[in-house]
Amino acid sequence: MSEELLMIPGPVPVLPRIRNAMSKPMIYHRGEEFRAMYEEIVAALKWIFQTRNDLFVLSGSGTCAMEAAIGNLVRKDTAVVCIANGKFGERLVEIGKRYSDNVTAVNFEWGSPVELEEVKAVMEEKHPQVVTMVHNETSTGILNPAEAIARLARKYNALFVLDCITSIGGYEVPVDDWGVDIAIVGSQKCLGAPPGLSAISVSERAWEMMMGDNDNSPYYMDLIAYKDSFEKGQTPYTPALPLFFALREALEVIKEEGMAKRVERHRRLADTLRSAVTNLGLSLFPRLNEVSAYSNTVTAIKVPEWLDDAHLRGGMRERGVMVAGGQGRLKGKIFRIATMGNITEREVSRTIRALEGALRG
Amino acid sequence: MSEELLMIPGPVPVLPRIRNAMSKPMIYHRGEEFRAMYEEIVAALKWIFQTRNDLFVLSGSGTCAMEAAIGNLVRKDTAVVCIANGKFGERLVEIGKRYSDNVTAVNFEWGSPVELEEVKAVMEEKHPQVVTMVHNETSTGILNPAEAIARLARKYNALFVLDCITSIGGYEVPVDDWGVDIAIVGSQKCLGAPPGLSAISVSERAWEMMMGDNDNSPYYMDLIAYKDSFEKGQTPYTPALPLFFALREALEVIKEEGMAKRVERHRRLADTLRSAVTNLGLSLFPRLNEVSAYSNTVTAIKVPEWLDDAHLRGGMRERGVMVAGGQGRLKGKIFRIATMGNITEREVSRTIRALEGALRG
Repeated sequence: MSEELLMIPGPVPVLPRIRNAMSKPMIYHRGEEFRAMYEEIVAALKWIFQTRNDLFVLSGSGTCAMEAAIGNLVRKDTAVVCIANGKFGERLVEIGKRYSDNVTAVNFEWGSPVELEEVKAVMEEKHPQVVTMVHNETSTGILNPAEAIARLARKYNALFVLDCITSIGGYEVPVDDWGVDIAIVGSQKCLGAPPGLSAISVSERAWEMMMGDNDNSPYYMDLIAYKDSFEKGQTPYTPALPLFFALREALEVIKEEGMAKRVERHRRLADTLRSAVTNLGLSLFPRLNEVSAYSNTVTAIKVPEWLDDAHLRGGMRERGVMVAGGQGRLKGKIFRIATMGNITEREVSRTIRALEGALRG
Repeated sequence: MSEELLMIPGPVPVLPRIRNAMSKPMIYHRGEEFRAMYEEIVAALKWIFQTRNDLFVLSGSGTCAMEAAIGNLVRKDTAVVCIANGKFGERLVEIGKRYSDNVTAVNFEWGSPVELEEVKAVMEEKHPQVVTMVHNETSTGILNPAEAIARLARKYNALFVLDCITSIGGYEVPVDDWGVDIAIVGSQKCLGAPPGLSAISVSERAWEMMMGDNDNSPYYMDLIAYKDSFEKGQTPYTPALPLFFALREALEVIKEEGMAKRVERHRRLADTLRSAVTNLGLSLFPRLNEVSAYSNTVTAIKVPEWLDDAHLRGGMRERGVMVAGGQGRLKGKIFRIATMGNITEREVSRTIRALEGALRG
């Protein structure tokens, strides 16, 4: 039997050449070889982020980077507005509340789009210093209007934190053009690397807000410590070396493909999947408006009323394909198929065949 | 030329069988295979920690576990006493101050031993709720009196946080017998795994102090979230899978050797190294008292007055052996050689030969 195909929204399947990069012997993490590797990784990520901002790699998952963003910017009295229309948007609210007593959540139903007018009204009222949003809401398969919210944030003079954990690497995310002050990505999503690392970019405006006051920042993800260490080509604490080896190789794969082609491939594969799904009589979960879109990196599908979620996903798994269920309040109501990283038509076809099989029972 | 030998106090050299475990394909991190692996890892670590307390694996370095310990226990008004006689003891002071306004550092000069009477006097005065200490102070090569401080903490009804990052796996650390409320270890030290993971054990008393109040805990290392997820055989956020694969294999190596033999090997190798060093006319750095000892996992040696540190370590490196310099205020004054993890007589002999060569010039 062929290996189980992971079509969940991270960890994604990792190419053998990327996995094999991890079997290299350890190196001195304060030496020249590490410095060169770290600089190479950061340069490639800056190219992918389309940013000239500072950028660091954290030895921790996407959630670690989410907390790095909030925990370094936000103090007890910082006015924060968190836009949320899914599990990960709400996670930013939860993290925000650990650091500030002044967090306003602008909630939209899970699977519903972000309404700009509502956000605008809250900004008008709350005058936030920091605005957060998830770009690609993995829990619901919706792409949120990053550029429009970035513009609003700038207009109201707020810093904009954009969670791009499952968008960067699969979408063009022009961090500087849009004016994203902090952008984050996870290694095990569209970058096609193993889980365990995340990256964060920090604008000049964000530094200005942080500087001279890290007394309450989380220590492990203290960005000022990251900045100081980066000047020596180091991380403040011991980096997860094998994951750096793998990430370097994963970025090499991205450079070889080119970002334009990579984005186009993500779009095409998601499109193929969405067509197949609707042709099979199933419905896509998200409700869209004029500023939102179906995600090209994860497709959320309603579980048909005549079928049980566990049965459906179990049937796909019997056919060698693992897809994800709904999270939290969406458990049993939707299932989700990722098209992230280095997968190709072949994996998408195999997934569609497994879905067809499972639907036939 | 043979591969460079890393004799720094982490990352340590990692056996090929452990490194190769990382090239396995990714697995579903919420499924049965992950659950079984995580439970196996936790069972092995509990055996090594000699504890029946809860234990979790964090996808972050030892510093991440240090912050998990402090950040979950300590609130703004928690009275904390941090015993420090080196860089890592001081790191616990720094982390403590991020979470509490009531931290008292009991400082001893770097390389000097902990004096129990002084600690006792501070406890008498401050009535701390939490006491922290580093067991094996990697920056100075000294083993601190964990059992005695645990007893003191219990006497004064304080919780005891013991940083065992570079002791567990190389020493017997009977966490329950001593009464250590929170113990932590790093993957890339005496356990012989790659860097990027840490583990933390939590006593009932520690849970009582935490429960019902995690509003200010760091989110990424929220131990209550770790506890809830563990019941499902999961981690709260995506685990660094390849590092788990490697850690499982590293623990297998430890089981095969047996802890008694492993501890004895660490003792013997350190002893060989210390004898060689003093026979070469060099002096060990730590000053000991009746409750401290030279570390068996890292040996700190004074740089002889007639030789430059960079020259000495450079000379060793030319001979294929990487050792560590002094950190912070000890830079240039000492150098440090680790005997951690799965190294053998062969590596220690090679190191001694390189040192001899470098001393000859």
